[in-house]
Amino acid sequence: MREVAVIGIGITKFGELWDSSFREMGIMAGLAALADAKVSSEEVDAMYVGNMSAGRYIEQEHVAALIADYSGLARDHIPATRVEAAGASGGLAIRQAYLAIASGMHDMVVVGGAEKMTDVGDMESNAIQSSAADQQWESVFGATSPSLHAMIARRHMFQYGTTREQIAQVAVKNHLHGSFNPNAQFQREIDLKTVLRSPPVADPLGLFDCAPNSDGAAAVVLCSLDKARRYAEAPIKILASAQASDTLALHSRADICTFEATRFAARNAYKQANIGPQDIQLAEVHDNFTISEILAIEDLGFFEKGKGGKAVEDGLTKLGGQIAVNTSGGLKARGDPIGATGVAQIVELVTQLRNQAGKRQVPNAKYALAQNVGGTGATAIVHILGVA
Amino acid sequence: MREVAVIGIGITKFGELWDSSFREMGIMAGLAALADAKVSSEEVDAMYVGNMSAGRYIEQEHVAALIADYSGLARDHIPATRVEAAGASGGLAIRQAYLAIASGMHDMVVVGGAEKMTDVGDMESNAIQSSAADQQWESVFGATSPSLHAMIARRHMFQYGTTREQIAQVAVKNHLHGSFNPNAQFQREIDLKTVLRSPPVADPLGLFDCAPNSDGAAAVVLCSLDKARRYAEAPIKILASAQASDTLALHSRADICTFEATRFAARNAYKQANIGPQDIQLAEVHDNFTISEILAIEDLGFFEKGKGGKAVEDGLTKLGGQIAVNTSGGLKARGDPIGATGVAQIVELVTQLRNQAGKRQVPNAKYALAQNVGGTGATAIVHILGVA
Repeated sequence: MREVAVIGIGITKFGELWDSSFREMGIMAGLAALADAKVSSEEVDAMYVGNMSAGRYIEQEHVAALIADYSGLARDHIPATRVEAAGASGGLAIRQAYLAIASGMHDMVVVGGAEKMTDVGDMESNAIQSSAADQQWESVFGATSPSLHAMIARRHMFQYGTTREQIAQVAVKNHLHGSFNPNAQFQREIDLKTVLRSPPVADPLGLFDCAPNSDGAAAVVLCSLDKARRYAEAPIKILASAQASDTLALHSRADICTFEATRFAARNAYKQANIGPQDIQLAEVHDNFTISEILAIEDLGFFEKGKGGKAVEDGLTKLGGQIAVNTSGGLKARGDPIGATGVAQIVELVTQLRNQAGKRQVPNAKYALAQNVGGTGATAIVHILGVA
Repeated sequence: MREVAVIGIGITKFGELWDSSFREMGIMAGLAALADAKVSSEEVDAMYVGNMSAGRYIEQEHVAALIADYSGLARDHIPATRVEAAGASGGLAIRQAYLAIASGMHDMVVVGGAEKMTDVGDMESNAIQSSAADQQWESVFGATSPSLHAMIARRHMFQYGTTREQIAQVAVKNHLHGSFNPNAQFQREIDLKTVLRSPPVADPLGLFDCAPNSDGAAAVVLCSLDKARRYAEAPIKILASAQASDTLALHSRADICTFEATRFAARNAYKQANIGPQDIQLAEVHDNFTISEILAIEDLGFFEKGKGGKAVEDGLTKLGGQIAVNTSGGLKARGDPIGATGVAQIVELVTQLRNQAGKRQVPNAKYALAQNVGGTGATAIVHILGVA
């Protein structure tokens, strides 16, 4: 397999972008990534787009062709491919582009992730997001993404003594990190009390335990490593790309306090990169809910199972701690335009590994990891990046 | 790049399958393909699923994880990826699986395509299918898939003198072919008068010029060629896999009588396979409308531009003719469960190349081609298969 590097990144602000359509956001992020890579559109061989549900959010399927068209790339008739795995759609797009280059089929690939969520009402958005779970055995009975994650939280508290306060500290930390990120949807610090007193969504989770509905897009330019040095002085190498699945419905699992798909993908990724969790200095993990981040840092091997809550409480996952988790603010504070999220994670890792993260910079980072999850852990994608 | 072969095929009947859910159809086709390949599920490394709009048809996104779950493959946590490019979703899934094997990442991959269309009403289905076109500049003004293709037909008649009767002959031929296919949705011959007198849908196209709404699923098992011989005496080799894009909206094209994406993908595919259109004995092309088949056989180089209608009229594309086109019955008679269609095309080509097509067998076929189209030609996928 050929080695693959990231040579360009681009991202829009995340938030309620009422002035920008889906296609406009996609193009803004894509063109920013091409400009950053100093690559002209004629050099692009293919495009991948991660998107969960444009069909329902904006009544538009076929969105990869749409973005190729409006960015001018359809002029050269390049292959444009949309991939979807609910919340993991962005990471999945990165991985398919990685495989397309590793195979030798393409040299230079643009990957975009986008979602336009605020054109529909909150109830409709909730229904759309719940279509990531099992429609026939979960959603149809009223189970939603928050309620499924609330069950996980309750069980984690029961099984490991994790406290409500520890879970809430994830939001406090990620809002702090978000305050250093000019593209974040929320750039204001919050305190523990604010999280604990926020309106309940699905007990024990309150409003501040949930990532927001967001509009936004992110893009990266991937290139075969041998050609990457023509464009970038310090290309960022993709050391591992791993993906795993699990049962769609939560009730089919032996243990709902662990996402086996994350564990499986992580094990595979560490093997590919030939490193272990102790070698990672920073990670972007899928905190669509506060409890999800606790599961993630345990399942990725950063902390022992059951000790994640304590680690967060002790500040071990904060900037300056043992491992900096979600320096971008995570889904919670940076925002979560579903299809864009997995690509935005890679944008953050590359920013950090290039030493361009400003106030939120992790010093001397060598290895960085992204974990992107679809549904209630039915899909997990893990990437490990490093300075080439 | 590693070479890739097809070692197993499976397909459901296409039609109004009111007794089968989306997941049931997916599993039936997948297990049939695994049984045909004599591969156990433990040997499968990854799964790709082509699907256009389960989000709107059955309120379920994340369908690759769903199929992995219900087929038992999630037990082994294999990567499960859904891809979408409207009508070309199935061919796209084949291509991504091909790249995953060619890259060296995976050895054995199952590809499924599925769509459950008849759980919604015809008007809703029409709206969903029109989301393959440009929502902002086509669909929102009332343009639908039939009306866009009707404009193409009118222009082709004007520009090349193609007659209404020639266009209708595509349906007559494909119903004849479908009458030899036990899995086809329509297995009854029709005559020219029936097509010409059918209720108008979008002038000049009538009901019998349009592929039906269908439920159905198809699956294939792909394997690296070096391992394929352990399973199959005569594995069918994928000689070329090509994909191209074009503007999403029809009005952005210089010429609506040709699909540049098809031409571009075909050129690329012939180059990869190192053969020309004259070497192909049979082809499955994307006849979602009768006029589409005429464009296809011209754009693929089987007949000169403008001569496609005459070729059909003269029987050159019939079984026993110069090149056998849509021996399965095509989208018109076999049926068109959108995401399944591109995979069903490969199932037909493999059946033919294995000499297992019974009454519709093309004798001594060596090279076979599949052309799968998304929207009004904004995505085209071309595969060429041959006996290894």
